[in-house]
Order: sequence, then structure tokens, then C-alpha cells
Amino acid sequence: MFKKIITPRISETNITRHIGHTVIPAWLEEGYEEIILLFSQDLAEPSLITVNMNMDFLHEIFFGKDVEILTGVKKVGTSSFVLQQEVYQERRLCVRASTTLVHFDYSTHKPASIPKTLRNILKEHVSASL
Amino acid sequence: MFKKIITPRISETNITRHIGHTVIPAWLEEGYEEIILLFSQDLAEPSLITVNMNMDFLHEIFFGKDVEILTGVKKVGTSSFVLQQEVYQERRLCVRASTTLVHFDYSTHKPASIPKTLRNILKEHVSASL
Amino acid sequence: MFKKIITPRISETNITRHIGHTVIPAWLEEGYEEIILLFSQDLAEPSLITVNMNMDFLHEIFFGKDVEILTGVKKVGTSSFVLQQEVYQERRLCVRASTTLVHFDYSTHKPASIPKTLRNILKEHVSASL
Amino acid sequence: MFKKIITPRISETNITRHIGHTVIPAWLEEGYEEIILLFSQDLAEPSLITVNMNMDFLHEIFFGKDVEILTGVKKVGTSSFVLQQEVYQERRLCVRASTTLVHFDYSTHKPASIPKTLRNILKEHVSASL
Repeated sequence: MFKKIITPRISETNITRHIGHTVIPAWLEEGYEEIILLFSQDLAEPSLITVNMNMDFLHEIFFGKDVEILTGVKKVGTSSFVLQQEVYQERRLCVRASTTLVHFDYSTHKPASIPKTLRNILKEHVSASL
Repeated sequence: MFKKIITPRISETNITRHIGHTVIPAWLEEGYEEIILLFSQDLAEPSLITVNMNMDFLHEIFFGKDVEILTGVKKVGTSSFVLQQEVYQERRLCVRASTTLVHFDYSTHKPASIPKTLRNILKEHVSASL
Repeated sequence: MFKKIITPRISETNITRHIGHTVIPAWLEEGYEEIILLFSQDLAEPSLITVNMNMDFLHEIFFGKDVEILTGVKKVGTSSFVLQQEVYQERRLCVRASTTLVHFDYSTHKPASIPKTLRNILKEHVSASL
Repeated sequence: MFKKIITPRISETNITRHIGHTVIPAWLEEGYEEIILLFSQDLAEPSLITVNMNMDFLHEIFFGKDVEILTGVKKVGTSSFVLQQEVYQERRLCVRASTTLVHFDYSTHKPASIPKTLRNILKEHVSASL
């Protein structure tokens, strides 16, 4: 499981006085930054593509208190895997998300098997619950 | 069904040379702007909350060509409804999304029935497919 | 002079009920998009770098009404030039900005002379006032 | 002087492989967050307005290394003051900015004198250089 602290920004606080839901995917991406860099050290030459993102917005998030993002692996397939993420503010679960990423070979423009070493690392982060 | 044209911005084009997925929810929100304003003319006093957003990223979106967002209503419940959206660039379906919104009464802090007039308007936008 | 219409987004409307000033540089960049593309068709291989941006915020900008961005050239030097921009909403001048861009050679990592053809195009857009 | 650490985000890294200049004002705002909150604890009822922002972009900022923002007060007037900010990455000065803020009375819609207590706090942060 990966942990990441995000400090909500003034500019992310919208007219309804809380953090808009449109901000959340950028935060979630920070939560799985280590996994992205595991597959490719060079952000400009990525080998992962995001094919699905599903977010449940359970509670408002406010400016003024840090947010904690927990990231685990839910499922590992041949060429894809699913991340499970939870965003907490003051110990309250505010967002639950799952994101499906595909290991992609840009030279053939097709999904590619996840190499064994990376598969093993991903499996270490699989858990029944976060 | 609602139609909205978005011009991808230079600043929305990320290091992988296409529009990052983190940008999409803000575009989708523009797609259902009319529905938000139907429920409340004052953005600062909204009566809708977003409880779920599910996005399938089917194809990359690039800078340089306008994007068309189609928005229809998938399902109308007592106090909530589900929108279905499709984002096209050059007639290619790039993103398919569904978003669940709840009619919310901020005074009681509870979900509230969708008024009949609004329900009827939403139902006019229900379609088997976009 | 270049003209560009921007539709303020819900997600750009901040907690103080207007468009936050942090959003403006991305809009201004859309205003001089044609100039960027004049110097390089490939955004990933730019030949301009932004070295200064100065913005006067004269009036609040609100969600709900389109904004017009006027862009002219203020001054053309050997390897740099200054743009002058004005952002209007409902005919009211809301932002005045000047941006200094340098023609840059990434192979030598040094400023480079602006080619004569491009200089002439820039000069066509010079005006005493917008 | 105020110090703030910002971690550049993947989503802030643009097609030219570095952090786009359009991202910087939101970072700078985080740098003077304490000053904003000094004037009003409630972000929705601010008493400061930003009237000018001038940024020199001296060096590219990259994803992967934290950034340090130093914020000092340059000048204090009757109803306005100027902040001076410097953004460093790996001890290299990347951005120098000055921002003019006006103490504003939203009830009369006019600039208002800065209260003596706040003026004194601002003066403690004045320095010849950062």
C-alpha cells in the first residue's frame, strides 16, 4: 500500500466552498505515482495507459486540512491491473476510487504482458481491503 | 440530449503529448452545465451533489481539434439521476462517462425528491443511446 | 490582432464566486496560440519560451458570460518579442497583460534571432493600442 | 519570510516536459496562504484582492523534485502591499514574482486601510532581499 499526503490548495476550493470533484483525478494520480514510475522512469515515454476511472464521492473535502491518499492493488491481470484508492481527510473517508491501467507497447500500439518482476511488485500491494 | 463544444487548451496537453485524463471531469461538467443551472441558477448555492463518476478512456484526445460532448439522461430515480456522456474528437468516441447526481437539501443535509417539473425535463433527455 | 473567445468553466469559478486569477495565464496562452504555432507546429518541440508575464487584474470575471481575449504585439526585438493582451467580459476590460517570449534554440540552449518571415508577421500585429 | 514546499504533480508537467508557466500562480498563492488567512479566516469572505502579478521565469521546473517557495513583503502602503516571491528547485532560482494585493472592503466596494496590527505583521516580513 502506498500513502501520500496532499495539501488542498486555495485555487482548488470552488464556489461551493469545498474542493471540486474535478480536482480529484490529479490527486489520485499523485497517489499512484510510484507505480507509474515503476513501469517507466520517463514520464514522456509512459508504458501505462489509464482505461477506466471510477470514483465514489462520499464526503466533501475542505481547504485547510491535509488529505491522505491510500493506494493498493485490487487485481492483476495479464496486461492490466486495477488500483483501489481511498482519500481521507481528518480520518473520514471522502473518496473511494478504482482505476484500471493497461501496460501498453507504444511501438506495436497494443497491450503488452506485465513483466514478471513488475507483476510481483504489484502483487505485494494486493490486499483484501485498504 | 445536450451538445457542447470544447477547444482543448495548450495547457491541458500533457507530457505524453495528449490531453491528460485528469482534465476530463472539468470538460464533462461543462457538458451538463444546463442541468446544473436547471436545479440552481446560483452556482454558489447548488442543489446537486456528484456522488459517482465513472469514465472509460477509449481513445487519446489531442490538442488542435475541437471536442464534442454529448450528454443524455440514463436513469431518473426519486432523488438522484444518472447522466451518460460521450466525448468525440473527429467523430471518434474518446471517452464514455456516467455521472450520478443527487438532489440535495443543504438545510436538512439530506437527499430530497426531484421536483416534478425538473423530473419531466430530465425525462425528455432520457434515451436508449446517445 | 488576434481575437479568441473563452467560455469560463464552472470548475474555474472559485470560492470567492468569480474566476480566480490563477486561471488567467492558461486563457492568455489560448489567446496567443496562433503565434506559438507560427514558431513551431509541434507543441512538443517549441521554439518559444515565456520569460516574463505581467498581469493587471482590473475587474472580476464571472461564470456565465463568454470572455474575449485580444492579443497584439507590443514590441519586436532581435530574439524576443512582447505581447499585449486584454481580456474583456461584457465589454468591460478585466485583465491587461504583457508577456515576453524568447525565440530559443534548444540545440544550443541559447536565444536565437527571430527569422525574417516571422518577424514580418509579428510586425503586422504591432499596434499603438489594442 | 514564509517558506512553503510544493511537490510538482504529474498532471502539471506539460508537453514540453517541464512544469508549464500557467501552473505557477496557483503555487505562488500557496506561498502567501498565511497572509491571506491573516486578513480573513474565511476564504469565501476574502478581504484581499490581487491587482497585479509579475513573474520572471528564469529556469525550467521539472517533475520529480520538490520546489521551495520563499515569500517576503516588499512594500506596505496605506491600503495595499507588494509581496516578493522566489521559487527554487534544487537551490536554483526558477521564478521570481511580485504580487500586489489590496485590502478591500466588499461592503463599500472600495479599498480600505490596512489595520495597524496587520500592518505591523506585514512589516516584520519586509526585507531588503529574500
